[in-house]
Amino acid sequence: MSVQDKSPKVNLTETKEFHTHSCGIFFKRKKILYQKDSDYQKIEVIENAHFGKILLLDGLVQTTEKDEFFYHEMLVHPAFIAHPSPQKILVIGGGDGGGLKEILRYPVKHVHLVEIDPLVIEVSKKYFPWLSPSLEDKRSELHISDGREFLKHTDKKFDIVIVDSSDPVGPSQSLHEKDFYKDIKNRLRPKGVVVTQVGSPFYHLDSIAEKNSFLKKLFEVVSFYFAPVPTYPGGSWCFAFLSDQIKPLDVKRSPPPGLKYFTLEIQKAAFALPVFIKGVLDKIQK
Amino acid sequence: MSVQDKSPKVNLTETKEFHTHSCGIFFKRKKILYQKDSDYQKIEVIENAHFGKILLLDGLVQTTEKDEFFYHEMLVHPAFIAHPSPQKILVIGGGDGGGLKEILRYPVKHVHLVEIDPLVIEVSKKYFPWLSPSLEDKRSELHISDGREFLKHTDKKFDIVIVDSSDPVGPSQSLHEKDFYKDIKNRLRPKGVVVTQVGSPFYHLDSIAEKNSFLKKLFEVVSFYFAPVPTYPGGSWCFAFLSDQIKPLDVKRSPPPGLKYFTLEIQKAAFALPVFIKGVLDKIQK
Repeated sequence: MSVQDKSPKVNLTETKEFHTHSCGIFFKRKKILYQKDSDYQKIEVIENAHFGKILLLDGLVQTTEKDEFFYHEMLVHPAFIAHPSPQKILVIGGGDGGGLKEILRYPVKHVHLVEIDPLVIEVSKKYFPWLSPSLEDKRSELHISDGREFLKHTDKKFDIVIVDSSDPVGPSQSLHEKDFYKDIKNRLRPKGVVVTQVGSPFYHLDSIAEKNSFLKKLFEVVSFYFAPVPTYPGGSWCFAFLSDQIKPLDVKRSPPPGLKYFTLEIQKAAFALPVFIKGVLDKIQK
Repeated sequence: MSVQDKSPKVNLTETKEFHTHSCGIFFKRKKILYQKDSDYQKIEVIENAHFGKILLLDGLVQTTEKDEFFYHEMLVHPAFIAHPSPQKILVIGGGDGGGLKEILRYPVKHVHLVEIDPLVIEVSKKYFPWLSPSLEDKRSELHISDGREFLKHTDKKFDIVIVDSSDPVGPSQSLHEKDFYKDIKNRLRPKGVVVTQVGSPFYHLDSIAEKNSFLKKLFEVVSFYFAPVPTYPGGSWCFAFLSDQIKPLDVKRSPPPGLKYFTLEIQKAAFALPVFIKGVLDKIQK
């Protein structure tokens, strides 16, 4: 399947993301600001009256001007307030710089960001300049590389690894497999924490359960948590918090000032599991 | 504006709900099962491959076969586990029977359900029979009436009042105004609790802030809480818990068995306020 085949059918005035074959979200376009097939995926930036600029990869919304804070704050802060001293950080994916922006609110020493697609970075710098200054911060080091390859060749170890991948189609496919998490575990310092986005608790529950199954074999602590993200399928997103020693509710510090979503109270709230998710996770563990 | 004018533009294969003028959700239709203008609103039932049967009023999704439990459980259980002895209940709106179904899981004595539109009840009985048996329960009493009028003329008092209205356009407009909540307060028993849906925390924050402003003048306890509802705008919904004596986190009992979403842990989690909402609510109170 070519990159083009993965993109949704669009008409002249509307961009649609299909969540399943039969439903999804639509955005009336004021403008198509950018549209190009990179070596890895179709990259689009559109302008919408309500959400402002929207970045799509292979037709799937990655971030929007208006609601980016939900996803990026919840991707980063739960691990950063639970780790005793986050100094050396690795981000895999996240070339838009949104997760990095949240990480740099902490007094970290060094953040390696590994993005496979240089065009994602170029486009983000141009159209999402409120996210991308983080890429220029002196504590940030950018690697244009496949995350799997980076992990195999680095001798560095990390306090926190954030996996800010796109969905398990296209260039991110291998970032959703067991061996990838084994490689991450090998690069963790003793109190290390990994956070990864795992999809919609409503639409992707089967794949969350499958991940739970292999992650439990790798990490002592496997805790799923949830956040609203208005432009993602179903409006809620699920993340996994992984560690051998650190528990997410054993909080070490208050979140930094200036956030729009996250609080200490939200940290506790986000890890409460609904019945239908508990049921599926428990079944898979047996 | 006629009822027809309020409905979204549809084509032959798709039903859209606009959340703003420029974005929304779409459902591919397998079938239009029902479509009629009642005396109050346009009523539609469509069939979608993912969500099953979907009920729309004036083009807005009210409930779907697949995701109804999120909304109905979160509308009902937070009040019912916090009240010391919920016996006499009033539901305003909710003619689909979904909220009533959750209420009848408790040993209540009598539930009055006041629905303005008899056609909503008829359609729900036919197309959503897994919700509507609650309407036939011997503890349920159905009143076809405007909620405002019912409150003005009843001499009954209630332990819990659930306002399961549609949005503040069309027949539900007056159910979003201060005088309506004054009338409810007059019909509450001393430890009474009111729960009302107040819209999307993302799309309708201004109207939530406005409600907060007048509700704080009427009730000692005004606590907002949140739940994911995949087919509602933004995928999250906000509810208000109102009382003079009862606090939502002072829980009196465990939830009944058989639920799909709600747990005691979710009760605590749902009341955690994100920063951007806290800010708006605090500003309005001053």
